[in-house]
Formats: sequence, structure tokens, C-alpha cells
Amino acid sequence: MINSTANKQVKRVVNLRNRAKARREEGVYVAEGLRMCRELSIKDTEILYVTEGFAGDRENRKWMDGFRFEIVTDVVMKVMADTQTPQGVLAVARQKTYTLEDILKAPRNGKLAIMVLETIQDPGNLGTIVRAAEGAGITGIVMNRETTDIYNPKVIRSTMGSICRMPFVCVDDIRQACQTMKDSGVRLFAAHLKGMNNYDQEDYTDNVGFLIGNEAGGLTDGTAAMADCYVKIPMAGRVESLNAAVAASVLMFEAARQRRNRKG
Amino acid sequence: MINSTANKQVKRVVNLRNRAKARREEGVYVAEGLRMCRELSIKDTEILYVTEGFAGDRENRKWMDGFRFEIVTDVVMKVMADTQTPQGVLAVARQKTYTLEDILKAPRNGKLAIMVLETIQDPGNLGTIVRAAEGAGITGIVMNRETTDIYNPKVIRSTMGSICRMPFVCVDDIRQACQTMKDSGVRLFAAHLKGMNNYDQEDYTDNVGFLIGNEAGGLTDGTAAMADCYVKIPMAGRVESLNAAVAASVLMFEAARQRRNRKG
Repeated sequence: MINSTANKQVKRVVNLRNRAKARREEGVYVAEGLRMCRELSIKDTEILYVTEGFAGDRENRKWMDGFRFEIVTDVVMKVMADTQTPQGVLAVARQKTYTLEDILKAPRNGKLAIMVLETIQDPGNLGTIVRAAEGAGITGIVMNRETTDIYNPKVIRSTMGSICRMPFVCVDDIRQACQTMKDSGVRLFAAHLKGMNNYDQEDYTDNVGFLIGNEAGGLTDGTAAMADCYVKIPMAGRVESLNAAVAASVLMFEAARQRRNRKG
Repeated sequence: MINSTANKQVKRVVNLRNRAKARREEGVYVAEGLRMCRELSIKDTEILYVTEGFAGDRENRKWMDGFRFEIVTDVVMKVMADTQTPQGVLAVARQKTYTLEDILKAPRNGKLAIMVLETIQDPGNLGTIVRAAEGAGITGIVMNRETTDIYNPKVIRSTMGSICRMPFVCVDDIRQACQTMKDSGVRLFAAHLKGMNNYDQEDYTDNVGFLIGNEAGGLTDGTAAMADCYVKIPMAGRVESLNAAVAASVLMFEAARQRRNRKG
């Protein structure tokens, strides 16, 4: 049992939690809470840290079978965890590595639907987009390096487990990635003030990608220029723009609606 | 000029910022940043606090014309403000008071579209809903008292000014309020696992209300029972639910889409 907060493993977890660079160097991240940890396979998990209370529960113990684990005191768990009230379980999990080519492989049933994120800064927004993307049937996410680290604990939490299932890739040059997608037959849409048509007047039933820009500044001109089509989300009142996760969701669920009704 | 953080006005602003009870008792709230403050009318504003740097700008000075204001030092502004990098302006503004009857007054052009929020806990979610609601043409918001305080600085910030334009009311008994809405001819929809039809298969062009529940627990059974119709947002992958602001937005923008296309 680990009962000292000065323990090397504890320090490592805190460091992984706080520093994107440390996560990148080790190729791992920290997943907290039972709901999130339940999504991890044994293969994807380096080690679980659990409290005595957690491990004392029969169901939990059964679930832990096959995982490498360490028992820690409640105090140690509190130091390790990012949340105020940790749930007694935390995992160091292995990062997934997808390539743009993986994301461009057409899914067995259906067409590509890719989210392209440029410099999304808020971890809550990024996590919410990943979660909504899975729900809307998005097939992959492409981000630039300036987007907040997807392995940030706040992002992980907001994804509610979708991080384990949604293919994603960080690219050095998002415009080049856009070109590669276009060359693969993906039609790119950007929600943009210059949009002529409302977003629900375009067809998203073929291979599509949606470009979503930074919360404050939107898409850079160069990236927006990669879009095949600008669409607008018509706005009532005096609202100038929507929260990035909301704008992304409106587009993703419109695509899902069209794909569902096209089939039906 | 206020240059001491021990000043009574500074202490009052910090107290208003931190405590919902203090805001309620005084009937005011704290609005931060130029973008937000620009939305306030002179009548709605008790006082502005501005830094010398802010007031030194010609444009800002022009905008301040007619407002009561006090100059504060940068250090004092930092203590007063909720944000890490305050923008040099902050207002103590008067709370709006709407009644359920106000919200049930039909808008001049069109039908009612009301968001009914039960125990939304995350300030970011609430603010995002208010902002998206204005954009989607929602005519009013009804919340229970357990919903996070709408005058919380994080909510205010997330609304991006929509707080000044969107009618809202906090009610003691949300089920009673639902009954009053129904009696006024509002058809209530709840996104619910029990939903038979997909959300896009129902008609939202008449007077409608959407019930949105708590982030973790959803709607209570008693409140869900007030709905005239359960709808489901069909979900791909293994996603069980959406973020509350995303679910709300998907419904609101579907209503906006139907209303727009019905007109066209």
C-alpha cells in the first residue's frame, strides 16, 4: 500500500496530470473515476491506483481482475486526483496513436464525418466536442497542435469515456491535413460569417469534414480558405457567435439527422 | 481614485462576486469586461469601476458617458475581478425581474419557445444555454431554485451578453410552473430515454417548451412526468447522454430550423 504522498509513483501521477509534456514523453495519461476507467481495456492500462474502500467493494474487485494495481490511502488518492472528491480509482493509461490515414479509412457502413479543430483552447469545450462527436456518429477528429492537449484531465473527464473510442490525430500543419482530406474526397464545410447558405441547406450525407475554430478568434483565414463551402448558423437576437462546442454540435447533429433520414 | 484593496466598495464587489445571497439581497450582480459591460444600459447599471488605463482610452471614455463610475488602480481591479486578466472595466448592475407571466406573453411575431431547466449545476453550461437560447430564438427561460445562480460571474461571462436580453425566471415549484405553461397552451417536450420518436420527428412550430435536467441525474421523474411528449436524441457509438448544453442546443436549433423553414 502506498501511504506517503512523497512516494515516487504519487509524484509521477501528479506530474502526468499537470504536464502535457510529461504525458507526451511517457505516452500515457491519467484517467479518473470508475465510469472513465471502466472504458479502459487491460491492454490500454499501465496501472490502476485504488483506495482500500474502492477495492473492498466486491463489484469493483471483480472489475479490477486482470489489471495491474496498487492500493493507496485516501489522502494519497486526494493528492493524485484532479477532482475535489475522487472516486477511489485512477488509471495511468496508454495514449492511442492514430494517423490521418487511419482517420481517412472509410468506415464499413457509411461515409466519413470528420471534425477539424483549430486551436480550441477550453478543455471543457474539447471534451464536450469529443463526447458529442461520438454521439453524432463522427468518424474521426483532426486537431492542430495549438488545440489544448486532449489528454488534459479536464478534457478526459468531459469526454465521459468517448476518448477511448473516438479516433483522433494531432497534426503539425492543419492546412496540409485539410488538403489531404480534400484529396481523399472529403468535402470540407466551415461555419463562417461569409456563409451564403444556412447550415441545414447543405448535404452532409457524403464524406464530409467540419472546420471549427478558436473560441475567441474563430478559424484563421488560411484554414477557412481550405473549406469547400461556408455555411452559416442563422442567429436570432444579437448573438454574434455560439460557444464552439455548441456550434460543432449543431453541425454534427444536422449531419446525423440527414444521414438517418436519408437511410430511412 | 480607489487605490486600497481594503476600501469598502472593493470589499462589497468581492462579496457580490462570491456570494449569491449577497447578490440576491442587494438585487445586483457583477458584470466584467468591455464586451459584457457594453450590453448594459445606463439605467441597469449602478456603477462602473474602471482602471486608469481603460479610462484613458478615448473610445472607452466616450462609451462611459452618462454612467456613474469610479477609477481604481490595476491592483484593485485585479482583486475585484473574477478573471485572471481583467479587462479594466467592471460593473455593478441591477438584476432583472421577470415573472412567469412575462415569459408567457406571446412574442409579437411568432410562438413561444421556452427552456425549462431543472437543477443545472455547471455555471458554464447554464451560461452556454442562455447564449445559445438567444441565438436559437428562444423566448424565455424558466429555472428551479436548485439551478446554479444565473448571476454567478462564470454564468454571466459564458452568456456573452445574452443575459441582458433573454427573459428568465427562477421558480419555487418547477412542476407547478410546467402546469401553468401547459394551461397557457405550451406543449412541453423532454429529451428522455423513454422517448419513442427522434427529436426531429416532432413539430416545434407552435408554442413549445423543452425540459432539460441535471447534468448527472437528468430530469426528476416528477418533472419529466409534466412533459406532453418524450423525444430521444438518437446516439451513435456508446454515448449514453450528451452534455446538458449540447442536448439543449440540439433541440433549440431543431426548433429554429423548423420555424425558419416553415416560414420560408
